[in-house]
Amino acid sequence: MIGYGFMGAAHSQGWRVAPRFFDLPLAPEMSLVVGRNADAVAQAAEKWGWAESHTDWRAAIERDDIDLIDIVTPGDTHAEIAIAALEAGKHVLCEKPLANTVEEAQAMAEAAERAAAKGVRAMVGFTYRRVPATTFARDLVAAGKIGEIRQVRAVYLQDWLADAEAPLTWRMKKELAGSGALGDIGAHIIDLTQYITGQRLTSVSGILETFVKERPLLESGRGLSGTASTERGEVTVDDLALFTGRFDGGAVGSFEATRFSTGRKNALRVEIAGSTGALSFDLEDLNSLGYYDATAPDTEQGFRKILVTEPDHPYMSAWWPTGHMIGYEHGFSHQVKDLVEAIDAGEQPTPSFADGLQVQQVLQAVEESSVHGSTWTPIS
Amino acid sequence: MIGYGFMGAAHSQGWRVAPRFFDLPLAPEMSLVVGRNADAVAQAAEKWGWAESHTDWRAAIERDDIDLIDIVTPGDTHAEIAIAALEAGKHVLCEKPLANTVEEAQAMAEAAERAAAKGVRAMVGFTYRRVPATTFARDLVAAGKIGEIRQVRAVYLQDWLADAEAPLTWRMKKELAGSGALGDIGAHIIDLTQYITGQRLTSVSGILETFVKERPLLESGRGLSGTASTERGEVTVDDLALFTGRFDGGAVGSFEATRFSTGRKNALRVEIAGSTGALSFDLEDLNSLGYYDATAPDTEQGFRKILVTEPDHPYMSAWWPTGHMIGYEHGFSHQVKDLVEAIDAGEQPTPSFADGLQVQQVLQAVEESSVHGSTWTPIS
Amino acid sequence: MIGYGFMGAAHSQGWRVAPRFFDLPLAPEMSLVVGRNADAVAQAAEKWGWAESHTDWRAAIERDDIDLIDIVTPGDTHAEIAIAALEAGKHVLCEKPLANTVEEAQAMAEAAERAAAKGVRAMVGFTYRRVPATTFARDLVAAGKIGEIRQVRAVYLQDWLADAEAPLTWRMKKELAGSGALGDIGAHIIDLTQYITGQRLTSVSGILETFVKERPLLESGRGLSGTASTERGEVTVDDLALFTGRFDGGAVGSFEATRFSTGRKNALRVEIAGSTGALSFDLEDLNSLGYYDATAPDTEQGFRKILVTEPDHPYMSAWWPTGHMIGYEHGFSHQVKDLVEAIDAGEQPTPSFADGLQVQQVLQAVEESSVHGSTWTPIS
Amino acid sequence: MIGYGFMGAAHSQGWRVAPRFFDLPLAPEMSLVVGRNADAVAQAAEKWGWAESHTDWRAAIERDDIDLIDIVTPGDTHAEIAIAALEAGKHVLCEKPLANTVEEAQAMAEAAERAAAKGVRAMVGFTYRRVPATTFARDLVAAGKIGEIRQVRAVYLQDWLADAEAPLTWRMKKELAGSGALGDIGAHIIDLTQYITGQRLTSVSGILETFVKERPLLESGRGLSGTASTERGEVTVDDLALFTGRFDGGAVGSFEATRFSTGRKNALRVEIAGSTGALSFDLEDLNSLGYYDATAPDTEQGFRKILVTEPDHPYMSAWWPTGHMIGYEHGFSHQVKDLVEAIDAGEQPTPSFADGLQVQQVLQAVEESSVHGSTWTPIS
Repeated sequence: MIGYGFMGAAHSQGWRVAPRFFDLPLAPEMSLVVGRNADAVAQAAEKWGWAESHTDWRAAIERDDIDLIDIVTPGDTHAEIAIAALEAGKHVLCEKPLANTVEEAQAMAEAAERAAAKGVRAMVGFTYRRVPATTFARDLVAAGKIGEIRQVRAVYLQDWLADAEAPLTWRMKKELAGSGALGDIGAHIIDLTQYITGQRLTSVSGILETFVKERPLLESGRGLSGTASTERGEVTVDDLALFTGRFDGGAVGSFEATRFSTGRKNALRVEIAGSTGALSFDLEDLNSLGYYDATAPDTEQGFRKILVTEPDHPYMSAWWPTGHMIGYEHGFSHQVKDLVEAIDAGEQPTPSFADGLQVQQVLQAVEESSVHGSTWTPIS
Repeated sequence: MIGYGFMGAAHSQGWRVAPRFFDLPLAPEMSLVVGRNADAVAQAAEKWGWAESHTDWRAAIERDDIDLIDIVTPGDTHAEIAIAALEAGKHVLCEKPLANTVEEAQAMAEAAERAAAKGVRAMVGFTYRRVPATTFARDLVAAGKIGEIRQVRAVYLQDWLADAEAPLTWRMKKELAGSGALGDIGAHIIDLTQYITGQRLTSVSGILETFVKERPLLESGRGLSGTASTERGEVTVDDLALFTGRFDGGAVGSFEATRFSTGRKNALRVEIAGSTGALSFDLEDLNSLGYYDATAPDTEQGFRKILVTEPDHPYMSAWWPTGHMIGYEHGFSHQVKDLVEAIDAGEQPTPSFADGLQVQQVLQAVEESSVHGSTWTPIS
Repeated sequence: MIGYGFMGAAHSQGWRVAPRFFDLPLAPEMSLVVGRNADAVAQAAEKWGWAESHTDWRAAIERDDIDLIDIVTPGDTHAEIAIAALEAGKHVLCEKPLANTVEEAQAMAEAAERAAAKGVRAMVGFTYRRVPATTFARDLVAAGKIGEIRQVRAVYLQDWLADAEAPLTWRMKKELAGSGALGDIGAHIIDLTQYITGQRLTSVSGILETFVKERPLLESGRGLSGTASTERGEVTVDDLALFTGRFDGGAVGSFEATRFSTGRKNALRVEIAGSTGALSFDLEDLNSLGYYDATAPDTEQGFRKILVTEPDHPYMSAWWPTGHMIGYEHGFSHQVKDLVEAIDAGEQPTPSFADGLQVQQVLQAVEESSVHGSTWTPIS
Repeated sequence: MIGYGFMGAAHSQGWRVAPRFFDLPLAPEMSLVVGRNADAVAQAAEKWGWAESHTDWRAAIERDDIDLIDIVTPGDTHAEIAIAALEAGKHVLCEKPLANTVEEAQAMAEAAERAAAKGVRAMVGFTYRRVPATTFARDLVAAGKIGEIRQVRAVYLQDWLADAEAPLTWRMKKELAGSGALGDIGAHIIDLTQYITGQRLTSVSGILETFVKERPLLESGRGLSGTASTERGEVTVDDLALFTGRFDGGAVGSFEATRFSTGRKNALRVEIAGSTGALSFDLEDLNSLGYYDATAPDTEQGFRKILVTEPDHPYMSAWWPTGHMIGYEHGFSHQVKDLVEAIDAGEQPTPSFADGLQVQQVLQAVEESSVHGSTWTPIS
């Protein structure tokens, strides 16, 4: 595993727990974690259960006993590491967004395609596809339960930047993060709505906004927060991304990503309306799915709250009895399961790097639209 | 009262009930209702409690014993009636949207201004300002409870057109209705968000979509529904309006109006996020308001559901004890109360025709943006 | 109408509004309102729209032009007035609870039976049966939608007495109110659960509790609140009633009535679980009904929130379009409609005085059980 | 660990995960799992990550390298194993309920007291105390946030037995399970409400009901479900337990435990009303807590939904960023953390066996009351 921040903890938990609850065809071993700071990464290895640690990601790629590279670093480093790993014949799991630019993502998708020809697999980590409720939403759509999809409404709302004095971390610097709310959390709702609907965005119109343009520099700390310094720096990414889009299956969508929505902590909400039904989901209540069946008798129609904890719901037979909640991290176990099974079966895991590239193209089109007066912009 | 459809029933209930629950300075009398079909309007007079009926609205304007004209006809007739009434020295209450075009609305606003100079009052009927929860939301914003407003999220979702075979009524014809979801229900969220935030939209970007382009003609029936004929006609208005906008106080907003959102019956939802708090409202649960106080201790913060039924909440001391719900129609009594009080006090009731005109200008800017590739468009 | 407090306002609104929205076979006239204080009752007549007022209820009974007596006084006066009215050949609508004692209720039920033989009708005002959502719940049960009923869970929670310094009104004096939360709001959940399930309670076990045993006397004011005096008096009724019971159809139920449940304003909540489905209702969100269909595929089951605002829902075709909320007071219009229709049709309106008597018997059994160590007590 | 069913999986996950997220003062090793079926327990060892397996629990007690015995067997075996383990100087974690009878529980509590004198610790596994939201509820009560507690309303509703043909497992046999819903899930709400309020039940009145008295025998399968045989057996435990109780601090409570509440999967709901505030919790939405502050201005009061995912909430700094949900199993990690820390600190972990005994006494009093016509029964 390359990187060991918040995502490193989540991925580690996935690797540790998945084999206990799912019958995997291969037995993952947690060999090596890599980070630039030797002491810190050694501590991380100890804490998260990796056998060894190292300061250079190339060491991982050179080791013969390592079959898979899990990349959880900031987006600017994804391309170099992933391409090198794929070329060295290692399977790759890469956190989203795939890269900070379309160019890098393009190169990665090409590397993945070359690798696939040799049986080497690459997957991008959009774990919210693997929340049982969202996977089940996709199943319901695929089964025609809501008919022809007309409308998609997706927001991803957090508020950890609403405080104008929260310090400037790497996620607020364009050169490291690529974009702000757009790439960080907007990418999730693009992927997730495309996944659930089975449709792809073909064109968008958007605006980006930076509410707080200057923040105290980060003195110490990692991850999402830390201690503020007395010096200040410029925020070079968006605080809010609003965009609309058209899907290739005829649906029209609205999207909002922001880390400034006071009171919303992790509110990834998706509502999908079709000709014969509708679905709703909120990550702040991730064990349930709203479903409206417009084919029921008029007087008996209503949004039902399905607790997605039945044995027949996706992934759930492995966990607890009906009605027992799972959490955020379980998606990472599901990701490990699906990836390991795909590798074992010699199949392409999804989402592929090509899928990740397409999300990157949508993000880029939103940015372009925003700098051209929200002009309607096709996805290249 | 000119007109006697769904809105006629609601306005009649307002005039009948308001004097019973509020101590009005003037005693309204329900004198005359006007409609084109003599039998139907006579029946309406009987049913809704108007002393007389007539088939020509000019009759109402000519009568000396009538002081106020309440207009509840389709939008294409508003300008002519309202201007004539104001010029005849009658106070006017006009259902929203003020008119079908900016030009008509402009003329109406000018007529209202001239009339005001003579003490004659004009008001446009955006009743959702007068749901106690929305009025209270405005009060909280005005009191600085949520700080500087950054984000506005407003949708008005209905689904009565989701059925592609629902018949073509006047609300789907551009020449009568002006626009579709945009003017019918989009106007409400424009007015309401501007009212609550105390800010005005200055520019917008939008798209309009017509999902079902042809429908069976209406054979019989009035109001929102009716019996379908075997012939078909073209839908000339939008089924969905999506737009984003900037407010003059710095807030950024997203808006959606649609009559195709399967499972949503009357979901006018507004969420407003500020630097120190947030608000949320849903017309499908109109007796409550969501309020998030970000100045509370971190561990005690949460969206609270305020039941807006306390005696100290706007309008509520007139109704039932704490916890007893009021309904949709109560806004019409509140409108009567405020209008009658303003007339008695010699003050301008709000929203004024100028306010109604500005909403019309926003609607027009959205339409313009939508035909120019969603280009960012200033409100004239 | 005899009495003119909170219930007087609600009943007046029912009589005024019902004929406007429903096609009644008879046209009610609001002739006379009676109260002990001449000035106050004259004011009430003016405010609530009664043609005349009087200080002696016997005057109403003696008048030939009055066909129906509506009793909205405290419970200790119900028996005398109702029996006199029935004997005088007047139809009677009597607010719940029917009386303060089983003996009085018994006499009233007998008077009603005698009157019925002469075509004179008596009805007790359990209006919560006439909230469209509860009526529809009964319909679903009657249609077998939830199978064999096993469990009933009903609470009626208010908090207007949670403040220990709220003044002592007639509702806290045993001699006037009969009991406290038990008779005032507990009676509602007894009636409502028996109505929805179609089953009757046959035995109960209960406890009563008075949390605040002494309160300031009421200096002035009527209805639920008022100004406190410096003198104090004893609270002689219960603040909380908890009881369990068995129904004649095999269901087991739990009940709670209290005016001390901080934060709950009017939370009459009913949950009913059957062998093939379940229902839930909350008066604080009275336009919706929860329905769980256990015969749906396992993965698609969930409590659905039915907005009970469709034209085919009980009473709703008379009101507003789909999705437009109604309020607390609408139940009183529905009550007027059903009562007038029954009188016109020469049929017994429900709930009858016999139904009201049975509720009184349940209340008495709960009181008896509570003074005998919660011993299981049959309904006589 | 003795036993390896559903609870075995949950406890295993606790032991595996806790050391990764919490800095424990001691490093737990998962040495040995015990079960009667050699093959099955060997498989369980492999699956859940225990180094070895054995078929006799005495083997575990005899091993010097084992310091702690974790008991997750049915209740009838708890006493023998726990007492032997304590006498052998092993710390003990014992799943709830502590035992099937008060006598056994008494003996266990005495053994625990003797062991404590030698520094050997015993804890009973009421993990729902360690859901961050419930722990935080206790903190709020302890801080006086809701004032004097008057009312407790607690239900634990499941529906996995609503199907009358679900097979007869050990949980439906009195000799193995002690009681039905009462001991299985009723024990949780007794412990949890006593924990949150800081008060103890002193007397109760209750009824028990068995809706389905005969079921198909279990042919194969373990845990909560399995395959039905064609033979039938008698259900000897309750399907529903309803009871009321008085707490030593003056609160009055109502309780319901059932596995027949159609549509409710794991609805452990607690509502607590105090003189200045109220709390509500639902295990089906375990990351949030409802809190009502009755000291706020009247118009701003409302139940707020606190997402209990802030770093300053109990246990949460160890997990994910704000707004990221945790699940059912996390309580088991919290239990491990607290137990290990108590052992290291030489302190008594809570809940102690004495606490578990007291819960058992409440359960017994409910059973006694139920066989004596619900007579009010003191807790011995």
